[in-house]
Amino acid sequence: MSPNRLDAIREVLLMGPGPSAVYPEVLRALARPTLGHLDPAFIAIMDETKSLLQQVMTTGNALTLPISGTGSAGMEAAFVNLVRPADRVLILINGVFGTRMKDVAGRLGAQVESIDFPWGTPVIVDRVADHLRKSEPYAIVAVVHAETSTGVLNPVEQIGKLVRETHPDSLYLVDGVTSLGGIPVRLDDWQVDAFYSGTQKCLSCPPGLAPLSFSARAVDRLKSRPTKVPNWYLDLSMIISYWEGAKRAYHHTAPINMIYGLYQALRCVLEEGLNVAFARHRAAHERLVVGLAQIGLELLVAPDVRLPQLNAVKVPDGVDEAAVRSRLLTQDAIEIGAGLGPLAGKIWRVGLMGHTARPEHVDRVVAALKGALGR
Amino acid sequence: MSPNRLDAIREVLLMGPGPSAVYPEVLRALARPTLGHLDPAFIAIMDETKSLLQQVMTTGNALTLPISGTGSAGMEAAFVNLVRPADRVLILINGVFGTRMKDVAGRLGAQVESIDFPWGTPVIVDRVADHLRKSEPYAIVAVVHAETSTGVLNPVEQIGKLVRETHPDSLYLVDGVTSLGGIPVRLDDWQVDAFYSGTQKCLSCPPGLAPLSFSARAVDRLKSRPTKVPNWYLDLSMIISYWEGAKRAYHHTAPINMIYGLYQALRCVLEEGLNVAFARHRAAHERLVVGLAQIGLELLVAPDVRLPQLNAVKVPDGVDEAAVRSRLLTQDAIEIGAGLGPLAGKIWRVGLMGHTARPEHVDRVVAALKGALGR
Repeated sequence: MSPNRLDAIREVLLMGPGPSAVYPEVLRALARPTLGHLDPAFIAIMDETKSLLQQVMTTGNALTLPISGTGSAGMEAAFVNLVRPADRVLILINGVFGTRMKDVAGRLGAQVESIDFPWGTPVIVDRVADHLRKSEPYAIVAVVHAETSTGVLNPVEQIGKLVRETHPDSLYLVDGVTSLGGIPVRLDDWQVDAFYSGTQKCLSCPPGLAPLSFSARAVDRLKSRPTKVPNWYLDLSMIISYWEGAKRAYHHTAPINMIYGLYQALRCVLEEGLNVAFARHRAAHERLVVGLAQIGLELLVAPDVRLPQLNAVKVPDGVDEAAVRSRLLTQDAIEIGAGLGPLAGKIWRVGLMGHTARPEHVDRVVAALKGALGR
Repeated sequence: MSPNRLDAIREVLLMGPGPSAVYPEVLRALARPTLGHLDPAFIAIMDETKSLLQQVMTTGNALTLPISGTGSAGMEAAFVNLVRPADRVLILINGVFGTRMKDVAGRLGAQVESIDFPWGTPVIVDRVADHLRKSEPYAIVAVVHAETSTGVLNPVEQIGKLVRETHPDSLYLVDGVTSLGGIPVRLDDWQVDAFYSGTQKCLSCPPGLAPLSFSARAVDRLKSRPTKVPNWYLDLSMIISYWEGAKRAYHHTAPINMIYGLYQALRCVLEEGLNVAFARHRAAHERLVVGLAQIGLELLVAPDVRLPQLNAVKVPDGVDEAAVRSRLLTQDAIEIGAGLGPLAGKIWRVGLMGHTARPEHVDRVVAALKGALGR
């Protein structure tokens, strides 16, 4: 048999758009002995994972659990459980992940409309307000909190208030894949009805699970559906019976060891303290901005709407951006990300997510970029 | 913060219907440093994983890869990619997982029919032949290879031949969640068009991925769909672009560390040799049958259609089956499974899957049952 490729894996400092650097405790957690998915010891870990997720999301939502798939499975789960045939859905789009929402909801038979904003700029609440005030009600209004493709922070709190005021029966759906753990997420205060995230961003766990939370309003919508959820695997009305209550009804076999990893990652985040972690992300971001400026690099996004955890760095004219990324990976063992869609070739994406967001990592990537650019 | 529950995990011998005992090498693989999902070193692991899967499935199918979800996500993926609106689908049912197929396909808008056989007995090819010879063509005919709910082996090879003879344009879909790695699986020889499995059965990896394979005929069906796959996350027409070709187009972030685990598990299976592994499963099963007979226990399923890896053991009259399972778990650190549906309370399910299928494990479970039953 050929040599085992796992033996050749070297440590790469993950500074792209995710996965991020994983806590060493989380890697050790993944290697714990596998328990059965109905073992009381595992069910206790599930219950505590749920409670830890509620704390990180600042919510009392009973339906809060990790979906057995990566972040995109969280998006699929949020829409497939809530979209009823021919529902009107409004998506606020300013990047890849808003665009993806439109595709996901459209495939499920929704009548999808969107309001589009230039990539690299945020959703403008006034434009959304003008639209909502004159439009028929939507079943769902959806937005991405932290656009991983551009590094833009969207005004999720203000949009939530607006949606509830103008269309009180609309459900408000928020993608928090890149926000959770890196910047404040307050589902109840922000009147968010459906939220999902990923494990491989600011929670610093490998990819594989999608933390999800539904408000009581969203659960009512789910339970009053006229038709079955058109996706057995992600049907939350059945998954709830495994994650809640005295009798745990088997639905599908939970990804046991990945849940160990998430449990440990959430403990790491909460042991540090959410506000301390947010400040650490912010400080790493500011250090990066200063370091980049010293080598003549600047960010795409305006300072007041930048995500600290995802930095879109403009590629200087005449620089082969792919060659720089390749050099960083092979020579410096640092991964940074490329631009997507209209930003391909124009930006690098430098992630400072979770365990990655530390001054020594910032200094390493700045030094590596300096070397690669010969500055 | 409360004590870390991971520190309290003890080793349990997993002898239920899955997850099975995990290879120690696989647990170590899970804890390897996370690479980026576009890192060339990770892509090399993906490519080799694909090739290892082809060997275990005995197929040359180019579309062979692990779906980013548990075994049930494999079932969802197989149907959602192949079912077109109003397609006629025939499911051969003799347990929970055939029943689940009916639910999955029905939610996707298929016109589902089934031929039902008593739980604990196999699909009878002659009955299927009678039906197929007089029926209109089906878009898909589907069956479970190894019914995890009953321990019955279905005649997948004969059904495949029959389907191709009677309805040459039908796609033949097989659930191999519990078969792969424990008994022969020969997709090309058996004319299987769509196949999926799970990692947590005879591959002895934790749950979290669903190895899947589509024949060229199935890929043609997928590519000629009149409508988009109504599930973005599981859309194989897009996922292929990440798993194949020179340019790896990002679809969703792959579950990196779980793929390390699967890669290692497949290496373990193939280093032992498939035929050696099958013989080990068979020998463990025979040892179990003898051991159970010595304490007066017998199996539900007739000898010629028993799965070696999943043994449905009849609960003797007057025995509290749940109390026995609970005693085994708490006192002996052995997990065995309960019956499902009409077999609840009537059988225990004793798994001898993958790394679990060893004589010392058989002896441990027989001794534990002996103690629990006072025999």
